[in-house]
Amino acid sequence: MNQLPRRLFGAVEAGGTKFVCAIGDEAGRLLVEERFATAHPSTTLPRMLSWLQGQERERGPMAAIGVGSFGPVELRRESPQYGSILKTPKPDWSGTDILGSLSRVFDCPIGLDTDVNGAALAEHRWGGAQDVADLVYVTVGTGIGGGAIVAGRPLQGLLHPEVGHIHPRRHALDASFKGVCPFHGDCLEGLASGPAISARSGASLEHLDAAHPQWEIEADYLAQLCAQLTLTLSPRRLLLGGGVMQQTRLLPLIRRRLQHWLGGYVDRPELAAGIDAYVVAPRLGAQAGVLGALALAIDAAI
Amino acid sequence: MNQLPRRLFGAVEAGGTKFVCAIGDEAGRLLVEERFATAHPSTTLPRMLSWLQGQERERGPMAAIGVGSFGPVELRRESPQYGSILKTPKPDWSGTDILGSLSRVFDCPIGLDTDVNGAALAEHRWGGAQDVADLVYVTVGTGIGGGAIVAGRPLQGLLHPEVGHIHPRRHALDASFKGVCPFHGDCLEGLASGPAISARSGASLEHLDAAHPQWEIEADYLAQLCAQLTLTLSPRRLLLGGGVMQQTRLLPLIRRRLQHWLGGYVDRPELAAGIDAYVVAPRLGAQAGVLGALALAIDAAI
Repeated sequence: MNQLPRRLFGAVEAGGTKFVCAIGDEAGRLLVEERFATAHPSTTLPRMLSWLQGQERERGPMAAIGVGSFGPVELRRESPQYGSILKTPKPDWSGTDILGSLSRVFDCPIGLDTDVNGAALAEHRWGGAQDVADLVYVTVGTGIGGGAIVAGRPLQGLLHPEVGHIHPRRHALDASFKGVCPFHGDCLEGLASGPAISARSGASLEHLDAAHPQWEIEADYLAQLCAQLTLTLSPRRLLLGGGVMQQTRLLPLIRRRLQHWLGGYVDRPELAAGIDAYVVAPRLGAQAGVLGALALAIDAAI
Repeated sequence: MNQLPRRLFGAVEAGGTKFVCAIGDEAGRLLVEERFATAHPSTTLPRMLSWLQGQERERGPMAAIGVGSFGPVELRRESPQYGSILKTPKPDWSGTDILGSLSRVFDCPIGLDTDVNGAALAEHRWGGAQDVADLVYVTVGTGIGGGAIVAGRPLQGLLHPEVGHIHPRRHALDASFKGVCPFHGDCLEGLASGPAISARSGASLEHLDAAHPQWEIEADYLAQLCAQLTLTLSPRRLLLGGGVMQQTRLLPLIRRRLQHWLGGYVDRPELAAGIDAYVVAPRLGAQAGVLGALALAIDAAI
């Protein structure tokens, strides 16, 4: 009995702290994966390229490659900088042409989006948001970023969502902390990222006991983000991941504060009795990013 | 020489303070228009119906009808409440089935969206945002509402955008004002709508001289909305209309404060030298709502 040959895709999660390269198939299965720290572009990009070339030698040509990149990254195809990292506080990476480094070596189509838009797409296709076409994926870790799927498609626009840099109201127990964002000081990322927690409280969340005000402060800031997202992007589900969200005690605290900030105005069961299914943890966990890159590859090949 | 018969469409802008009914064509031309105050549904809806029936008797059948409704309104076709006003502080209108009242009388397709999504669509099709596929239209008047076009299509999702109810940071010159929103007190609508301005300063904006702090306060709150929208919806243009925005001195003040809140983080010429073309007045003025309803009708007929 004949079988259709399985098409293979390259996937690159180009994260600010690590790169994940993988080969996968149309069903969202990863065959092989390689992880390494994001160092200088002059070593990191060649490492990505040679790993993918080695995989091609072993398995045959890739049908397409997908890249989910840390931001800000140029996503407008009409721009001469398409596929390059824009001005970033990350040393040495401003102006790095990730897409160009791939397209000079590989002939196949290359799909590109932010790592968080990719993760949102992966959760939509294979994870915890398969039943909704409008969702937001937020990661809370070293930074705070978000990706959005609107009517089934990743949202781009002028740049791409940068939800980590909205300005929440200051919590009453947190009036004096200056925040750690190099651009804004006390924007959301400056107040609620992992480094912000450590700077304010001298320890990461898992080392602070449940009565420590840091828990309440963190939940309030992230709930304000959820409220702003609900009132602007109107998603049908909010997925909160990243290192800080590994502390599962946060989710119920965030849900309660989200209801406080909305004040009953958005009259939807999803925001009342159904809130536990509205603000959720991602289902793909640490694989969301690389699976997102795989989804971008599949979509680029079609 | 034969001509294709011109198709005619019904358009209903169902606003919270006035209804505008019109007949128009595919090119966005309005042939005839009728305006009346939004009173009790038991008188307002029959008035809308009989006007449209009269037009059909005179001009022949409509190809479709479009409705741009004040919100919150049920837009999910799968809901039994599709086309009804949801829980609203506006007396007597909660649960009113605007779409049903039309579909019981007219056989043609009926398009439906919020009035502000409709206005955004009209600006995209015939007004000041024809060159971009991602935009937000905000109206600042008795209330504050916003509509969004993403990749050329109105954004809906869980409900629809309700951008008037985000919580901006309080301005230093405005620490004690409690705000006028019945749901939230000092959300954006509670702080920056027309009634909020009057409650705080005892007069509407046009009666306050240029040195009055109200100007700076108003511009700051609306700039915070523009910043949140830029960071979440990532539009390529922001159009600010409504009665309060008739004070054209506001626009440049808002642009400057928007740049302050973004802090240079979103590195786009549209937010730097090009800001005058990024935050703009709508081009269709008071016609945006009814033209939006016409656009919804045209799209429903296709």
